[in-house]
Amino acid sequence: MNSSPVDGAVPQARLDLARRSRLGMAEAVWGEHKSAAQIAGILRQLANSGELALATRVEATKAEAVRQLLLADPAMAERSDQLLFHADARCLSLGPPAPERADLGPVFVLSGGTSDLPVAAEAELALRWHGIGAELLVDVGVAGLHRLLGELERLRQARVLIACAGMEGALPTVLAGLMPQPVIGVPVSVGYGVSAGGTAALHGMLASCAPGLTVVNIDNGYGAAMAALRILSSGAGAVL
Amino acid sequence: MNSSPVDGAVPQARLDLARRSRLGMAEAVWGEHKSAAQIAGILRQLANSGELALATRVEATKAEAVRQLLLADPAMAERSDQLLFHADARCLSLGPPAPERADLGPVFVLSGGTSDLPVAAEAELALRWHGIGAELLVDVGVAGLHRLLGELERLRQARVLIACAGMEGALPTVLAGLMPQPVIGVPVSVGYGVSAGGTAALHGMLASCAPGLTVVNIDNGYGAAMAALRILSSGAGAVL
Amino acid sequence: MNSSPVDGAVPQARLDLARRSRLGMAEAVWGEHKSAAQIAGILRQLANSGELALATRVEATKAEAVRQLLLADPAMAERSDQLLFHADARCLSLGPPAPERADLGPVFVLSGGTSDLPVAAEAELALRWHGIGAELLVDVGVAGLHRLLGELERLRQARVLIACAGMEGALPTVLAGLMPQPVIGVPVSVGYGVSAGGTAALHGMLASCAPGLTVVNIDNGYGAAMAALRILSSGAGAVL
Amino acid sequence: MNSSPVDGAVPQARLDLARRSRLGMAEAVWGEHKSAAQIAGILRQLANSGELALATRVEATKAEAVRQLLLADPAMAERSDQLLFHADARCLSLGPPAPERADLGPVFVLSGGTSDLPVAAEAELALRWHGIGAELLVDVGVAGLHRLLGELERLRQARVLIACAGMEGALPTVLAGLMPQPVIGVPVSVGYGVSAGGTAALHGMLASCAPGLTVVNIDNGYGAAMAALRILSSGAGAVL
Amino acid sequence: MNSSPVDGAVPQARLDLARRSRLGMAEAVWGEHKSAAQIAGILRQLANSGELALATRVEATKAEAVRQLLLADPAMAERSDQLLFHADARCLSLGPPAPERADLGPVFVLSGGTSDLPVAAEAELALRWHGIGAELLVDVGVAGLHRLLGELERLRQARVLIACAGMEGALPTVLAGLMPQPVIGVPVSVGYGVSAGGTAALHGMLASCAPGLTVVNIDNGYGAAMAALRILSSGAGAVL
Amino acid sequence: MNSSPVDGAVPQARLDLARRSRLGMAEAVWGEHKSAAQIAGILRQLANSGELALATRVEATKAEAVRQLLLADPAMAERSDQLLFHADARCLSLGPPAPERADLGPVFVLSGGTSDLPVAAEAELALRWHGIGAELLVDVGVAGLHRLLGELERLRQARVLIACAGMEGALPTVLAGLMPQPVIGVPVSVGYGVSAGGTAALHGMLASCAPGLTVVNIDNGYGAAMAALRILSSGAGAVL
Amino acid sequence: MNSSPVDGAVPQARLDLARRSRLGMAEAVWGEHKSAAQIAGILRQLANSGELALATRVEATKAEAVRQLLLADPAMAERSDQLLFHADARCLSLGPPAPERADLGPVFVLSGGTSDLPVAAEAELALRWHGIGAELLVDVGVAGLHRLLGELERLRQARVLIACAGMEGALPTVLAGLMPQPVIGVPVSVGYGVSAGGTAALHGMLASCAPGLTVVNIDNGYGAAMAALRILSSGAGAVL
Amino acid sequence: MNSSPVDGAVPQARLDLARRSRLGMAEAVWGEHKSAAQIAGILRQLANSGELALATRVEATKAEAVRQLLLADPAMAERSDQLLFHADARCLSLGPPAPERADLGPVFVLSGGTSDLPVAAEAELALRWHGIGAELLVDVGVAGLHRLLGELERLRQARVLIACAGMEGALPTVLAGLMPQPVIGVPVSVGYGVSAGGTAALHGMLASCAPGLTVVNIDNGYGAAMAALRILSSGAGAVL
Repeated sequence: MNSSPVDGAVPQARLDLARRSRLGMAEAVWGEHKSAAQIAGILRQLANSGELALATRVEATKAEAVRQLLLADPAMAERSDQLLFHADARCLSLGPPAPERADLGPVFVLSGGTSDLPVAAEAELALRWHGIGAELLVDVGVAGLHRLLGELERLRQARVLIACAGMEGALPTVLAGLMPQPVIGVPVSVGYGVSAGGTAALHGMLASCAPGLTVVNIDNGYGAAMAALRILSSGAGAVL
Repeated sequence: MNSSPVDGAVPQARLDLARRSRLGMAEAVWGEHKSAAQIAGILRQLANSGELALATRVEATKAEAVRQLLLADPAMAERSDQLLFHADARCLSLGPPAPERADLGPVFVLSGGTSDLPVAAEAELALRWHGIGAELLVDVGVAGLHRLLGELERLRQARVLIACAGMEGALPTVLAGLMPQPVIGVPVSVGYGVSAGGTAALHGMLASCAPGLTVVNIDNGYGAAMAALRILSSGAGAVL
Repeated sequence: MNSSPVDGAVPQARLDLARRSRLGMAEAVWGEHKSAAQIAGILRQLANSGELALATRVEATKAEAVRQLLLADPAMAERSDQLLFHADARCLSLGPPAPERADLGPVFVLSGGTSDLPVAAEAELALRWHGIGAELLVDVGVAGLHRLLGELERLRQARVLIACAGMEGALPTVLAGLMPQPVIGVPVSVGYGVSAGGTAALHGMLASCAPGLTVVNIDNGYGAAMAALRILSSGAGAVL
Repeated sequence: MNSSPVDGAVPQARLDLARRSRLGMAEAVWGEHKSAAQIAGILRQLANSGELALATRVEATKAEAVRQLLLADPAMAERSDQLLFHADARCLSLGPPAPERADLGPVFVLSGGTSDLPVAAEAELALRWHGIGAELLVDVGVAGLHRLLGELERLRQARVLIACAGMEGALPTVLAGLMPQPVIGVPVSVGYGVSAGGTAALHGMLASCAPGLTVVNIDNGYGAAMAALRILSSGAGAVL
Repeated sequence: MNSSPVDGAVPQARLDLARRSRLGMAEAVWGEHKSAAQIAGILRQLANSGELALATRVEATKAEAVRQLLLADPAMAERSDQLLFHADARCLSLGPPAPERADLGPVFVLSGGTSDLPVAAEAELALRWHGIGAELLVDVGVAGLHRLLGELERLRQARVLIACAGMEGALPTVLAGLMPQPVIGVPVSVGYGVSAGGTAALHGMLASCAPGLTVVNIDNGYGAAMAALRILSSGAGAVL
Repeated sequence: MNSSPVDGAVPQARLDLARRSRLGMAEAVWGEHKSAAQIAGILRQLANSGELALATRVEATKAEAVRQLLLADPAMAERSDQLLFHADARCLSLGPPAPERADLGPVFVLSGGTSDLPVAAEAELALRWHGIGAELLVDVGVAGLHRLLGELERLRQARVLIACAGMEGALPTVLAGLMPQPVIGVPVSVGYGVSAGGTAALHGMLASCAPGLTVVNIDNGYGAAMAALRILSSGAGAVL
Repeated sequence: MNSSPVDGAVPQARLDLARRSRLGMAEAVWGEHKSAAQIAGILRQLANSGELALATRVEATKAEAVRQLLLADPAMAERSDQLLFHADARCLSLGPPAPERADLGPVFVLSGGTSDLPVAAEAELALRWHGIGAELLVDVGVAGLHRLLGELERLRQARVLIACAGMEGALPTVLAGLMPQPVIGVPVSVGYGVSAGGTAALHGMLASCAPGLTVVNIDNGYGAAMAALRILSSGAGAVL
Repeated sequence: MNSSPVDGAVPQARLDLARRSRLGMAEAVWGEHKSAAQIAGILRQLANSGELALATRVEATKAEAVRQLLLADPAMAERSDQLLFHADARCLSLGPPAPERADLGPVFVLSGGTSDLPVAAEAELALRWHGIGAELLVDVGVAGLHRLLGELERLRQARVLIACAGMEGALPTVLAGLMPQPVIGVPVSVGYGVSAGGTAALHGMLASCAPGLTVVNIDNGYGAAMAALRILSSGAGAVL
């Protein structure tokens, strides 16, 4: 079947390469609604311009397809060992992370249960890739409160706290009632019935009786990391 | 203006007077959508048949209108000192509560904040009016967790716990993670934005990661009390 | 493709093993959003610590994958005949149920139609696994009311009633109007159009005109069983 | 303050006076969003053309304002004793009802509780005003099922059943499971929490497991009456 | 893997076989959430008791699985040629339809577009299977109004009109403004964006400015047929 | 009670006075959430800069308060006869409309029923105030289709059609199926039950099966007028 | 398995072939809920009557199935090279586009990101197929505002602007604040969490503070193109 | 009418007076659902313990009632000149603000339009009352983008940006695409139709394509201020 002329070539993406100088952060590729060809093309563009190349929300089979496409490109083939798939975070990176910034961080990323792990891991990876020290604390949900209370001392070192939770999403509320640092709540689309899709967790965090908790979109681990980056940079008096 | 013949008389309510023998509890009058005349009529019917007469969701001005209507009725006038308005619980009662049942209870009714008080007070009143010992614990919301943790010893005496909370509604979740008794969550329509109307609290309680928490409708303090009554009666091996 | 170092090992789950002594019930594994590897790991941890090991919401193919993983582990292989898949309840158990407690129960679990069976069976299984006598009564929906009315005598033996229903979810309302015991409504995500996902049934149960009905999240058979356990323990004056 | 020229006169309503010959029913005036002047104007137009003049959703004070406006009009003043306000149904009628049609009906209008009365009364009035025999049965809600079961014999005479219910709205479902006639469910906006506004009742009726139940909009007593009229006319083989 | 004892046998469905004598209609099997084994079992039970055996919402592959199961049963094998799959209506029938009732009907079933066909065909089939004459009129949506206006004469013969429509669902409104018969609107889950799932069509029909239109749940072609049956039987003065 | 210093003066609004040169239209004052003082201040600013001064969504009492405030200001007092309150459109204007543009228009504004009038009148007024000829056609709802069909000839003169409708909002769909011009649908928040607030009408218009219908926010008569203005200007090849 | 007689033949679609003369636009085939056989049949009917034959929302595998069906039809086989699949727009066309109309257009179609491309391409294709010059501008989302600001000069040539955006959907708002032409917003169902399904973008566009922006249903690129066509034809003073 | 004994005294609120040492911020009184007596009581408690006493969401008449109650209390009367009502922010304060912290801040609070002012002013007041320098920038909505672009230089001084917007809520998105600091979005419940109640703005901010934007509940100016305080304190390396 013939294809119409306009379909001959995917138009090249118009990347926001000035984002780092303007905002201090790279433009990540949101992989969910993009084809492997689109992702491969954008990663190549980013890597060629010397920018961090990170794609989020990439499932394992799509990641493998991207790798095959890059291998088939002679210019990229030699760099193919720089392509990493981070299965727990569902992310794909090409090229090295930014050098670690000792003056910023650390950020602690907490998750209520094992099922929230992919979102928490996305946040942690995004931070490390921007050079920020980050630590992951899983399974500290409020149904077994002693697990969280036992970690409070350690949490005092954090400059920013990111709390990921599905179900009723009470973890950031309890945390923000106990600790003075900035707390960023990330609702997770883990649940069933009224919590399916993460809306119950989102509303629980927005409605929180704990003062000064802020929230990002459901499952937006990357966004929480970028919010932490803005906070740390503000404290450092300079854009990264 | 003339009124059509059918409007001449309010049809008398068809009360479920057998409810006590069948279910062990009285039929309360839900006053919100009823006129003062309807409430007065039903209270009179209940009192005349020797049943508990309790109306919920009655605002102060409607309560006063009911009192005027009953005073104007010679048969009721002498009993008018038995008419009590419980302002904090927004309830109206006619006649004495049931005698206290020492073998049942106590039930503890907790509330997250001062704004949840009307709902908590409705639950407490409904229990006392059915002869169940009940205690009220206000302002134990999770944003200041030490207030709840400091009461755990005392809560161990309870046979049933009723936890009322608006906003994100995390109190019943935290409570059910700490205590082994039946916990009934009552979402409260206190909040704004995503928590206006109580849906965020309701969903938070239903989505709770704490096992075995049950929930009633938003603001349904009376229903929570009746659920506690069913539990206590089941334990006692007999319908009240 | 290389994987980044952090992906080398799944962090071990932080189980709430003190839950039984604190709350009288085991921590079940919610299998829906977990991988077979995560489920196998947690079941192994639970079984090794002598705790009830029960995973809910496990489909047949994932159950088989868990079995293969456990068989491949020499330490678990000998216990592989203790691994049971309960197809009707979509649950997986490793090791024996708790000994039956003759002083508690029985609980009756009712379902409106054949399609509600998986949820009702999950509740029944969770009760039996905690040592509580439980009986299942299917197809007693209110569109053919005589089927329920014909069972009322038998239902009088129950200490707690769990009523599962999809569609309009009227079964618990009718039941709670007829019987004095604690009634726990479980909305089921069976339906289409306005009842798809179970919200119509959930709202119907919360809005019930029958007094003292409590509700758990949609499809939460396990939660209803744990609520019944709290009620029975409260009556027995002791944590299980 | 001057008013712009276009505001000088309310444009006269363009009534659908051919509706009776086309559909067999009159056009009622939906009074809720109309001013007293608009209602008075339309009632006058209808009465002058010899059509049934009925306005629904008119509160007492607006009804009185309409009466004052009609009294001030010499042409209408003499007919002012034909203006009736039906307080229980919140309706206003001008002129006589249609003559009774012995070959059609009767229709039974049931309501779950006293609070549903205004909607049930609107349906009953609209039927009588179109010449159809109608009977009202209040307080037959399913929480006290014996009240409904005791009326089944009497209900067998009905040609059509209209069942009004708020809260969880289970009455039409139970009724349609017991009786073979057409059953029209009318959800009522009586309730609080999840049932506020009548959506829970509406969804319960639409999701009903009873076969062949149909539904109209929340609080639409008038619409249910017109649906009954269509059914009765269809049976009679002729448009009224 | 061993299966627990309770899984050995599917409990036999408790059919409402008295439904025909009580309500004049058979109990259809709602096939969507049932396994092929459950459907085969219920069809067998129904056919053995001499009742209409009709299953709705059965996809082609599940239908084939049911046929294989019945063929494998010697008692049913000889009747396997009585098993029909109605692909357009997604229904499965076993045994003959009821004899045609010349005194009832006809019913016209209209659909807005080709995509609404499965729902319209389900209604038409259910009517024919109960012995009611039914006619199907497709593609009469309101965006090309002349298609509907050209059929009005023919529609005058109908005793009941069933109008199926997705998208904005305006067809029943326009129809009920033009014709005096009972009109039953069936919203169809065909659409995208705001009309995905059929809610826009449902709300459009409930909110209709045309008087006396009634509505069933989204995609509920069977329910609309049963409502038509109730209407026709009421007109005939007798239960079918 | 003292007021804090910051409350001493309302900060002066930062008007977008370049809007006309940029977009060809004036900035109207949305009066709903503004105080009389804020409205008076902005109208004064606009009038002083020679710009159209029009405030929408102003109720009668607020309009009068604005007039009093302007009268009290000597610089405005002499122009107070230029202040007009348009009761049917709930708008307030200060100063003359723009001169009529004979090359643009006309626009026809249709409304389904009398209750939609305020929104239709707002659109008509906003057009006339920008110099566009506009005509109002009320009571052409689809339940009495002949009223619309009878006006088709006249509608052919229109350059743009604006169709306002509440309830199920079918008018723009039927219109766009009959006429070739641009049709802008304006959902109106008139209705009850599922149509309360206008969402059913909005969704009906967005889901329309008629091609090329566009929609504005509920009750946004002003926005529809501005959209028509953009269309007419585009046709004229020039910004007004 | 036998199929019932009614299933023997798909009823032929009743096309609205007069749509072009009435409205100036062709009836496109909405392919999403139709089978390959239905699409092939309708394309054949349209092509045979000399009308534009365009099907939207056709995935690649369904497109291939349609091609196979048409190839198997001798009458169509020779025209099979006229069948084009437009992968980026998910559309299928049979036969040539309409001749270009130099007096109309151009229309610019903008998209916020690469993920919005399918919707933007559908709009662009539908315009070109009706003979309207159209240009596509991708990746001009507001998070990198300079990309849009850099194109403003070029955008001044457009007669109509179509702006497609998912996520928060702010692009049409910013655009309509900068440019005077008609702006049609197309929300795109690209996003996750609160933006999944496109409702956040839809509401953002409807709620826009920019005056005169109109909106079509989520993902409705074809509808936006038809709205542009209505606008251009209105300007040209004639139906195409 | 007698009042029941339990109503004799309002139970004294259990304040979280340790909040400042734990979290670095005071507990504000959320005045919306509290009576004047409750607010007066809590302000008195706070002031007596030397803590910041600030009540939010207090309307003018309730504020006056609080003042009367405090005046009637001899112990408070002398401090009554310390009671300030901040009309623009709808807040009530008793006693002096915290001393200004030169090392922290400044924070800029932006609002899209005049109608968003109360929320922006609440944020600004809460900051100043905690000793943080704060500046208010109103009317910089994106429909007139030049107003925001003209302020970018000045905004570079800010340590944190708080952006309040109703309607479509695009301001924080545009801002976060231009500036590197932490941006906290505050949706405002200003709007109508789909934006009534602020949900459209909330979803727009959560769905934002700009990276690292965080959000608080609708109208929660106080919460945004406390989030800014957490950020500033984190940067300062110490709890305030």
